[in-house]
Amino acid sequence: MKGFVFQGAGQASWQDVPDPGIKEPTDAIVQVGVVTICGTDLHILKGDVPEVSPGTVLGHEAVGEIVEVGSDVRGVRPGDRVLMSCITSCGRCRFCRERRYGQCRGGGGWILGRLIDGTQAEYVRVPHADLSVHPLPATVRSEDAVLFADIFPTSYEVGVRNGQVRPGDTVAVVGAGPIGLAAIATARLLSPERIIAVDLAPARLEAAHRLGADAVADAREAPGQLVADLTDGLGADVVMEAVGVPESFELCTRMVRPGGHVANIGVHGKPATLHLEELWSKDVTITTGLVDTYSTPTLLRMAAAGRLPTGHLVTHTFPVEQMEEAYDVFAKAAETGALKVALGGERYDVAVPTD
Amino acid sequence: MKGFVFQGAGQASWQDVPDPGIKEPTDAIVQVGVVTICGTDLHILKGDVPEVSPGTVLGHEAVGEIVEVGSDVRGVRPGDRVLMSCITSCGRCRFCRERRYGQCRGGGGWILGRLIDGTQAEYVRVPHADLSVHPLPATVRSEDAVLFADIFPTSYEVGVRNGQVRPGDTVAVVGAGPIGLAAIATARLLSPERIIAVDLAPARLEAAHRLGADAVADAREAPGQLVADLTDGLGADVVMEAVGVPESFELCTRMVRPGGHVANIGVHGKPATLHLEELWSKDVTITTGLVDTYSTPTLLRMAAAGRLPTGHLVTHTFPVEQMEEAYDVFAKAAETGALKVALGGERYDVAVPTD
Amino acid sequence: MKGFVFQGAGQASWQDVPDPGIKEPTDAIVQVGVVTICGTDLHILKGDVPEVSPGTVLGHEAVGEIVEVGSDVRGVRPGDRVLMSCITSCGRCRFCRERRYGQCRGGGGWILGRLIDGTQAEYVRVPHADLSVHPLPATVRSEDAVLFADIFPTSYEVGVRNGQVRPGDTVAVVGAGPIGLAAIATARLLSPERIIAVDLAPARLEAAHRLGADAVADAREAPGQLVADLTDGLGADVVMEAVGVPESFELCTRMVRPGGHVANIGVHGKPATLHLEELWSKDVTITTGLVDTYSTPTLLRMAAAGRLPTGHLVTHTFPVEQMEEAYDVFAKAAETGALKVALGGERYDVAVPTD
Amino acid sequence: MKGFVFQGAGQASWQDVPDPGIKEPTDAIVQVGVVTICGTDLHILKGDVPEVSPGTVLGHEAVGEIVEVGSDVRGVRPGDRVLMSCITSCGRCRFCRERRYGQCRGGGGWILGRLIDGTQAEYVRVPHADLSVHPLPATVRSEDAVLFADIFPTSYEVGVRNGQVRPGDTVAVVGAGPIGLAAIATARLLSPERIIAVDLAPARLEAAHRLGADAVADAREAPGQLVADLTDGLGADVVMEAVGVPESFELCTRMVRPGGHVANIGVHGKPATLHLEELWSKDVTITTGLVDTYSTPTLLRMAAAGRLPTGHLVTHTFPVEQMEEAYDVFAKAAETGALKVALGGERYDVAVPTD
Repeated sequence: MKGFVFQGAGQASWQDVPDPGIKEPTDAIVQVGVVTICGTDLHILKGDVPEVSPGTVLGHEAVGEIVEVGSDVRGVRPGDRVLMSCITSCGRCRFCRERRYGQCRGGGGWILGRLIDGTQAEYVRVPHADLSVHPLPATVRSEDAVLFADIFPTSYEVGVRNGQVRPGDTVAVVGAGPIGLAAIATARLLSPERIIAVDLAPARLEAAHRLGADAVADAREAPGQLVADLTDGLGADVVMEAVGVPESFELCTRMVRPGGHVANIGVHGKPATLHLEELWSKDVTITTGLVDTYSTPTLLRMAAAGRLPTGHLVTHTFPVEQMEEAYDVFAKAAETGALKVALGGERYDVAVPTD
Repeated sequence: MKGFVFQGAGQASWQDVPDPGIKEPTDAIVQVGVVTICGTDLHILKGDVPEVSPGTVLGHEAVGEIVEVGSDVRGVRPGDRVLMSCITSCGRCRFCRERRYGQCRGGGGWILGRLIDGTQAEYVRVPHADLSVHPLPATVRSEDAVLFADIFPTSYEVGVRNGQVRPGDTVAVVGAGPIGLAAIATARLLSPERIIAVDLAPARLEAAHRLGADAVADAREAPGQLVADLTDGLGADVVMEAVGVPESFELCTRMVRPGGHVANIGVHGKPATLHLEELWSKDVTITTGLVDTYSTPTLLRMAAAGRLPTGHLVTHTFPVEQMEEAYDVFAKAAETGALKVALGGERYDVAVPTD
Repeated sequence: MKGFVFQGAGQASWQDVPDPGIKEPTDAIVQVGVVTICGTDLHILKGDVPEVSPGTVLGHEAVGEIVEVGSDVRGVRPGDRVLMSCITSCGRCRFCRERRYGQCRGGGGWILGRLIDGTQAEYVRVPHADLSVHPLPATVRSEDAVLFADIFPTSYEVGVRNGQVRPGDTVAVVGAGPIGLAAIATARLLSPERIIAVDLAPARLEAAHRLGADAVADAREAPGQLVADLTDGLGADVVMEAVGVPESFELCTRMVRPGGHVANIGVHGKPATLHLEELWSKDVTITTGLVDTYSTPTLLRMAAAGRLPTGHLVTHTFPVEQMEEAYDVFAKAAETGALKVALGGERYDVAVPTD
Repeated sequence: MKGFVFQGAGQASWQDVPDPGIKEPTDAIVQVGVVTICGTDLHILKGDVPEVSPGTVLGHEAVGEIVEVGSDVRGVRPGDRVLMSCITSCGRCRFCRERRYGQCRGGGGWILGRLIDGTQAEYVRVPHADLSVHPLPATVRSEDAVLFADIFPTSYEVGVRNGQVRPGDTVAVVGAGPIGLAAIATARLLSPERIIAVDLAPARLEAAHRLGADAVADAREAPGQLVADLTDGLGADVVMEAVGVPESFELCTRMVRPGGHVANIGVHGKPATLHLEELWSKDVTITTGLVDTYSTPTLLRMAAAGRLPTGHLVTHTFPVEQMEEAYDVFAKAAETGALKVALGGERYDVAVPTD
């Protein structure tokens, strides 16, 4: 089959690779239908993620059809259309038993496209299939469902739930890329009074408006002041970091109110400065997290019920064999305006649009 | 009357000051019985706390007897022996209504010995008396009760409750000064499997043992390794920072397990480095906080019932007029071995020891 | 002035009564603008609430204008338009300090129109004014605001929050009177997947649809089956009782899923049967509660922001002197289709509609 | 092999039965070392539990040694000494993923000695072994460990955790049989101010004292009054029902304070009366539950660390072939004073006592 293979820093190509097969009785083999590219894939491609060995097929977000299952798989069978989660779960270790699947110590966690071959291929082996794939309701299109492999559960669990968004809150989201936009959409589920989006790119702020932000602020123009003005000088109840750079995190800690929450969603490569000389007495809660995907079934149901907007997020589509072009468009988001790019997908379409 | 007056950086003395009087109908005047000195007082004395004006009587921890109350005070009356909390509370603002008295916007919060005259004096005016003093059970000695003005509720609320200590946990406490020791004693209330105390001073580690620590570690000798060894390499469930310097905070973030809690109790004067490049995916929760004293009545009852050890914490006692000597002994803790120093106290003694 | 005075079982009239005056420095006198009638008032009128003495002015829900305040009132002053909450709060007792104002032991709780004269009058004395009235944003009409005196916070706190409604849940609301309808509207704030309303009256089920119910069921036609069908036989995540009769409560305990919540909002006069022989192993949580009104400021802000529908609930309006007619229409709801009736109101109208 | 076989109401005997074998790759076969009898077994024997078919080997609490495992078992192997939990867990269904193993829909839950052959035998087949047995630390004796198969996790999860016991609380436990006694011992982990035990039998009240109760009350002598006297008339913060009869449950709902918790642990055969006419406004939370055994590893560690008393609970021991005599002694607890009876056990003894 074909797959997108990492070959070392700066090098990867859509090329021939061996077909995957069942290795463990809990495995499933899935024919990939729709697949997408994550910001983390760009980091891997740059060589920033040392645990990824050359020769690995990348990708950890996809929808596809089960074609084969191991002898101990009970929950799915060939023919099922499923979402492959970025997180696989052994279901037995201490962390899995606490629903922290992202921290799985039993051979799961984020392994697809990182420690084992991933989803940017024609076929993929998914370990621990019963706990790691999600059968899809017929009313959800694959192009929409693929957003639930990573960005929706990540934003919701690591941003909205960890941040403890409540009705009536003022929520600030710093960074309006795919993760920040999904954070805005899922924060709406808890009925904050207002959501303020902060970014540098006008196009992303416009997308933020469409996904449910009530106010937007250019990151260069004192966004903290806007938040203060809207909250009698107190600050936001919940601030989410969705960029992954120190300046952005530090802005978040300045915008939060006493007693408020800073939920870090961004993937960071460098330390940030924590201004404890101001924060020590401010009753703040700061959380970090890798997604566990415990919320994926709920979010899929909400999308199927038309209660969660998924439109506006996929800006570019490609046939799967144009993976390299898709990486290019996604990597140059400032120029291309790309949010999420989707590859493949025609054969799984159903008639019912969800947005 | 006499009081201990701050006169600018490095200068303070026990001197004549005007007697306090009722200013608001919610005030009470209290004759001070037992009073103590807080680490924060040393910071003020050094000139590190700019909001304290010269001429201010210091002190925010004391036990005494009500001698006069304003017309709107209902809960206490002259003759009552009361604990003066470091935190006063208006009871009406948004934060007081959420039990965040430390963040009071209605003229309360930490004001005694900071924004208004404090408790290191013969008499003190306590605003919002109904919500800011705690009548004492007869079975609690004033010398013990004074520890509940600040260090016990601070350690319990900002360390143990914010850190969400649970039965079976491994808890690490970095810093075994008065606050760290009270954190150890109050963490015991939640039955962790083990408590590990970290400090530089052998005498403080010995005190930690007496207050309930199961293991102690010299801060210079890889305390993180001890924690890792005791937890199969995972780290502690809860780590409390009770020092207030960047290195100590950074140690805490290295010792916490995935999914664990870092509860900062220390008063910090400088920023710390937050290693988000390691922590972003580790599911940690970091909290800061000023004490609210919501737990003071409960902790006093636990002490009265003999369920909370208060011994070993007061290492030196003085007559109140030796305030300057007491500051000296407390400031030179490394030499004197001082933990808490108590001034005054004879006249309130009762027969029943609590420890 | 005039007021609606209870004179014993079955007897009450709009008649002359003495003007109220300030009794305590924390009191306020309010000129009543818009007032409404609660189902509880009907119970009092029948003589079912023995603690209400003949001679008491009824009513505990109103909007009006402050005309006088006691010397210790800080938060409001004459001229302010305020909401009078059904609950007053001393702010000092153990329960008030835990935000359980409904359980106030310091002279508050539900006292208006029950233990002291209430709001169905031209003027009313409100004790503990700072903690018991809510200044109104200019954009909320008095006719809408009056719904936040009781039914909205009651439904939200005792139904939605106690029931722990979460995104994706299936919620059943038994009883679609004013309280049940407000429960549907406020449950929507937490984005359940679906809300199922159960009642006997088609008109109320129709109102339920308008307030946000996704499905409705006639209480005589196996509503439990509908819930089971929609949930793969499991039952609802959250069931709210908003009627106040044993049969309705028992239906709720049959409709809840294992691990689910039954939140009782209804006012009951008789015991119910609790089928512990079925429920003991079902992991259910059952809650009861009197409203505390801690959520009133948040709900008012949500209404002002247009995020909470208040329309369709006031079905009849009267001038205040037609109080007796209004009681009649409200008491005969089955015939008149009355949900909430509002009296007075013209002079407080503002231009901005909220619905 | 031999096993204790239920043969219909009132009939059971220790008799020859076929040896169990591996049926599924996730099964384990365990040689039983120490086994005990549960109150529920008496109910089954009386014919009160219709889902138990004649021919079933009874028992759901035991410690033993793994002798064979299926091909998909990873966490244990032959030779391991393990605790068999009363609850088995598929680990994949919706409920298992939420740690509600007791509600497992994938072939687990309480099935041993109920739907499949149980532990009162020489050998037993345990399904889903990885998730359903607990390897034992060498320092815990089998005679103590067997108490963690059911009564300790049941009391802790369904009583103490559901009841939300907190430091400083007043806790009442109604029923001082094995479950009530374990509730007292595990409630201590959360440092309530006092625990009040209620029972009819002086011997059980004496045992309650030994396990940590601070006060005891004869159920016939106004236990509610004692609770009221100790709590300024308010009632207990947490009340646990550990009997399983309507009168006992109703007593619990009378003893709880406003805002308090009633945690039902008892197995009920009949409905109780819920006095909603008093409780509707009292802000109470009532919970029911089947144990999930999520706490078993933690409780075992606490016992191994000497932090949880297990003594005084096993009152009688027998060789395993005297199963019928053991049932007799246990069934006549009022005469024999039996709390828990243990059978077998010599070969697993280790030197370190835990109590």
